[in-house]
Amino acid sequence: MPHPASIITLLTDFGDRDWFVASMKGVILSINPQATIVDLTHHIGSHDVQDGAYVWKSCYKYFPDGTIHVAVVDPGVGSDRRPLIAKSSRYFFCAPDNGLLTQVFEQEGDLEVREIENKQYRLDAEGHTFDGRDVFAPAAAWLTKQQPFVSYGRVLSDAQRFPVAQPQWEQAALVGEVVYVDVFGNLITNVSLRHVKEVREITKRPNPLIRIGGHSIDGLVRCYAEGDHGPPRALINSDGQLEIFCKESSASALLNVTRHEPVKLS
Amino acid sequence: MPHPASIITLLTDFGDRDWFVASMKGVILSINPQATIVDLTHHIGSHDVQDGAYVWKSCYKYFPDGTIHVAVVDPGVGSDRRPLIAKSSRYFFCAPDNGLLTQVFEQEGDLEVREIENKQYRLDAEGHTFDGRDVFAPAAAWLTKQQPFVSYGRVLSDAQRFPVAQPQWEQAALVGEVVYVDVFGNLITNVSLRHVKEVREITKRPNPLIRIGGHSIDGLVRCYAEGDHGPPRALINSDGQLEIFCKESSASALLNVTRHEPVKLS
Amino acid sequence: MPHPASIITLLTDFGDRDWFVASMKGVILSINPQATIVDLTHHIGSHDVQDGAYVWKSCYKYFPDGTIHVAVVDPGVGSDRRPLIAKSSRYFFCAPDNGLLTQVFEQEGDLEVREIENKQYRLDAEGHTFDGRDVFAPAAAWLTKQQPFVSYGRVLSDAQRFPVAQPQWEQAALVGEVVYVDVFGNLITNVSLRHVKEVREITKRPNPLIRIGGHSIDGLVRCYAEGDHGPPRALINSDGQLEIFCKESSASALLNVTRHEPVKLS
Repeated sequence: MPHPASIITLLTDFGDRDWFVASMKGVILSINPQATIVDLTHHIGSHDVQDGAYVWKSCYKYFPDGTIHVAVVDPGVGSDRRPLIAKSSRYFFCAPDNGLLTQVFEQEGDLEVREIENKQYRLDAEGHTFDGRDVFAPAAAWLTKQQPFVSYGRVLSDAQRFPVAQPQWEQAALVGEVVYVDVFGNLITNVSLRHVKEVREITKRPNPLIRIGGHSIDGLVRCYAEGDHGPPRALINSDGQLEIFCKESSASALLNVTRHEPVKLS
Repeated sequence: MPHPASIITLLTDFGDRDWFVASMKGVILSINPQATIVDLTHHIGSHDVQDGAYVWKSCYKYFPDGTIHVAVVDPGVGSDRRPLIAKSSRYFFCAPDNGLLTQVFEQEGDLEVREIENKQYRLDAEGHTFDGRDVFAPAAAWLTKQQPFVSYGRVLSDAQRFPVAQPQWEQAALVGEVVYVDVFGNLITNVSLRHVKEVREITKRPNPLIRIGGHSIDGLVRCYAEGDHGPPRALINSDGQLEIFCKESSASALLNVTRHEPVKLS
Repeated sequence: MPHPASIITLLTDFGDRDWFVASMKGVILSINPQATIVDLTHHIGSHDVQDGAYVWKSCYKYFPDGTIHVAVVDPGVGSDRRPLIAKSSRYFFCAPDNGLLTQVFEQEGDLEVREIENKQYRLDAEGHTFDGRDVFAPAAAWLTKQQPFVSYGRVLSDAQRFPVAQPQWEQAALVGEVVYVDVFGNLITNVSLRHVKEVREITKRPNPLIRIGGHSIDGLVRCYAEGDHGPPRALINSDGQLEIFCKESSASALLNVTRHEPVKLS
């Protein structure tokens, strides 16, 4: 069982222009001035729960045991969608019940999920439009003050999850897709190193042929510095995923490819 | 009287591209390495004091007592406009004397305002263009080191304030305006829940008719999840203000409406 | 010799959309949960080492002695370019060996530079594309845990540096250039106050004539508030550099001038 650390991370679609993130931080520090607050990102696409789930699963695991991860991408705020608090063997998670936890479930396995029902952990504020400030921030902050996890509310077994696209064999090719385009325009796919090894075994080709957006890439390189400027290349990135890039430029722009574009390995 | 906490918040129009915010943080940590620094936002419109004043008043009050709030939107830096430090019953504030404190005055009531005159609290640096780094950051940091408030300089009673637009009755309608457009394109107005109640009493309509940009909205809903995609709706937001939104899209874009657009309730 | 403080600053071209910066912070806090992490900026132009070097030198020196400054603008990640850790009389620096340290060298003088070779200070992770997370973040964090500087690896004397453009006399004019355009559109040049004094002495003009992008500016003003809206003006900025601005608007936009534009003083 994790012991709550005093580190709270925040992931939202609030951007950095308005005062929404700052209000959450103020609420946290009002409950625990010693809390360490870390921004994961506040630039999730507006209302884009799947985007939030992907970014969340990509970085929460680099934090120390006991970290409390808070994610707020919450178009259903104020409706009857439930606010959740969850616990894995290493971490705590706070999020609305709309699928944000989907990919955390896949990685952490056994999650104990509870509804945040206890009114003592809520901020008494106006309106019903900002649970980030009124529900999730105080819930996380009170956990750093050693409030017991069981005191938050009843256990739930039906938290929402959405289906996550997995690569599939179609005829003689493994077909995955682009799941994220990063700041450099690199195309991150849902094809993992394990899938690449599978393709190698089945096709007997040490260097699989990779096709995306009308382009063909012959095998993998090791790092972004390899090869010439211009043609797309592929490598296994720092999360163990197949990634398509163009040397020192944007593969997304040059290939005119974005999220959900198919990628085929044969 | 507030006792200075070691929490300093920063609000500026410096953006996040350049090194200006980082320099302020370095100066603060050089004076007090234990200070906790929180960004409110650095994306106030360039030189837009009214925008800064609005965002500032929207979030400072969520922080713990004793927090030192620093705001720098300062086109007059280096001129004879005075640098201010102020104290309310709960907080400290540092800002140039150009109206930034206007809406804090409205909320905090009794502010003791002093000019930052004491040269001991200034950074000795080149140029006259960066009081954020040279005056306001060190002033705030020294306060966390328990330097007495009275030692900063003389009391002022003529700090600048600008007029803040208030809703007015015109014929049979209460006319307010959009005062802020948030990251989601939601239109925040200067009409408060108190005004809405006044309209209900005077018009004897439980659901006031709301008109904005050629659109009519029939009464209020409770949260963003209600209703259909498309037509604008209205609710009381998390600050107790009337807000116009379109479900999961930008009301500002769909209605082609921005700051200062009139909103009429009848 | 500086004693490592627990303050780590981060400068990257990772932007604020993705999880890359957050992953670095998680790694740091996993090694030292007490570390104070400060963002310098994450908006360096993609792969733009010279831009990173300029911003880095502009703010590192405002931090307390012992601060560990980490910069990652690293198109060569995963290749044989070496990861560096360096020490001046006041600070520590971590960066790839690609010239990022160039302007720090100019300011700090005597730097002891070592290659980060010690595998104990590396994160054991997948891929070869993210030394920010796997090499530089842990190297910095272990330093705050008092690991000895000499234990990182061998001393290097051939760290990469690029040439930095200096103003030159051409006929009767000193010719410099714009080296940075800030968030306000102000044009920061490589002409320093020392150069301006030199021009005054040589030309016997107390107010040098400044020419840029087809415009002429007659002498210097003291601060941004002086003069009328419209025509460009010049001042010595907070870093002691000559800066061209337009009152409360963008000189870069109005003059259609950007980085590398010549500026002539006579």
